[in-house]
Amino acid sequence: MDLRSYLEKNVAVIDEALALLLPAQNTYPQIIHEAVSYSMFAGGKRLRPILCLASAEAIGKESTAIIPVACALEMIHTYSLIHDDLPAMDNDDYRRGKLTNHKVFGEGIAVLAGDALLTQAFEVLASYGLSVKDKDKSAVMCVINEIAQASGSQGMVGGQSVDLKSEGKSIDEATLTYIHRHKTGALFRASIRSGAILSQASKEQLHAFTIYAENFGLAFQITDDLLDIVGNSQKLGKPVGSDLRNEKVTFPSIYGLDKSKWMAVQTVEKAVEALRYLPGNTEPLKLLVEYLLKRET
Amino acid sequence: MDLRSYLEKNVAVIDEALALLLPAQNTYPQIIHEAVSYSMFAGGKRLRPILCLASAEAIGKESTAIIPVACALEMIHTYSLIHDDLPAMDNDDYRRGKLTNHKVFGEGIAVLAGDALLTQAFEVLASYGLSVKDKDKSAVMCVINEIAQASGSQGMVGGQSVDLKSEGKSIDEATLTYIHRHKTGALFRASIRSGAILSQASKEQLHAFTIYAENFGLAFQITDDLLDIVGNSQKLGKPVGSDLRNEKVTFPSIYGLDKSKWMAVQTVEKAVEALRYLPGNTEPLKLLVEYLLKRET
Repeated sequence: MDLRSYLEKNVAVIDEALALLLPAQNTYPQIIHEAVSYSMFAGGKRLRPILCLASAEAIGKESTAIIPVACALEMIHTYSLIHDDLPAMDNDDYRRGKLTNHKVFGEGIAVLAGDALLTQAFEVLASYGLSVKDKDKSAVMCVINEIAQASGSQGMVGGQSVDLKSEGKSIDEATLTYIHRHKTGALFRASIRSGAILSQASKEQLHAFTIYAENFGLAFQITDDLLDIVGNSQKLGKPVGSDLRNEKVTFPSIYGLDKSKWMAVQTVEKAVEALRYLPGNTEPLKLLVEYLLKRET
Repeated sequence: MDLRSYLEKNVAVIDEALALLLPAQNTYPQIIHEAVSYSMFAGGKRLRPILCLASAEAIGKESTAIIPVACALEMIHTYSLIHDDLPAMDNDDYRRGKLTNHKVFGEGIAVLAGDALLTQAFEVLASYGLSVKDKDKSAVMCVINEIAQASGSQGMVGGQSVDLKSEGKSIDEATLTYIHRHKTGALFRASIRSGAILSQASKEQLHAFTIYAENFGLAFQITDDLLDIVGNSQKLGKPVGSDLRNEKVTFPSIYGLDKSKWMAVQTVEKAVEALRYLPGNTEPLKLLVEYLLKRET
């Protein structure tokens, strides 16, 4: 299996579905729909929706049916980026080489564009829930609950709150772990588990998915920190070394470069190991987590 | 029936449920849960949840069962107030006589507190959906979808976007109507319709609720504009005359004081008229809309 063509195929599928699920840019009020589209189609890797679809395949299910759920996850991810970039938060002017939402549309509209996307995600999830058979509604309700938990004050928002309050302070390892597990890990976990839950995974299978997901999230964060040191700023679309300049606590700053690389490899191995309990095509999930070790963006 | 004791009883019920549904203030990360609680328990009138419960009663159903849904509506309302007050939006320092969220916790945390509340609302709705019998799950899914639509880019967020972009500009009547219908009207409508949908209202009954709701929303907005002129700033907890100072287009600015008062009375009558199609105890809904004509806050 070739990961590149798998990613390309799925990005196209997700982008097409996103365009259909979001109001068109010229829908009134135009300003908000333009702002939403601007960030939604700014070249995201669509990692969370692809993980969701790949999880259905790892059980042996057809992933096409759950595309709306995958799209909802990307909407939540995009809302979080818009709000994180705000001057009152990380104050970033560029993301993926493009001006951030508030730089183009102003802070007020950027706040509202994030709000709109978060809300739209739940509208899409509920519409999907209405479209499935009655016997499958429980699983969708479970997924809505799981995604909300992963995104809320004890999930992604919680992680971002601690990150915000830690800026310029020296934090310990436990705090760093909390931030990563919640700010980025929680939504990866929910993306993978959602695909599994909607594919009627057994309790044991769901456990395997969770192990995979938690290690995926950790490997993502370690390699993200490494990229900020050894990455190529042109490919990344943002300057490297910003963590160092902002005195951010990262894996390399705690463990050093070599140990961090070793940790990344170990974590990926653990994720792959968990996949052997799954009955379907686990090749995409395997290649996706291994790809983190080679990522350039 | 005495409206005052009806309101007091219901406010107590809702406040108690809200305290149980939200993470305790000392839950980690404390800063975000403190910020959420600060705005959630800042003396809100709980109008939206009370309308939701009163709608169940107007069908003849026990309203206790749907308290979580009522609370979710108040969470969404509170999130919208926190974000609306931000410097990049209405830039308000006070609300209900207390400092606004960002004045106490800073802008970054205020954005996150709003995000947390919006997300929590959907978590509560999905938990409620998991708790009901399978045959009732469809109605809950419908309500989640309706509330998300009412809150999103073609509902509340849409209204706020147009309001934001209209600041300092002279707007026409159609734009004013759009702002009100979406910024405040949509969530009132969803609150009332949610109570009805969860009480198995028939198509005709739901239509009557919708007529009531749309007129309630309109009467609320007209009387809100009137209060800014003839209200008591101490009771309101904010200065009066701010619309005039901010050159905001309001009902009195378009129609004059007398015609606006007359419109409020007419609108309330239309709302009351719609109630005669409903089989349950419609007295609370009647008194609630009539109360708008006497409101002081």
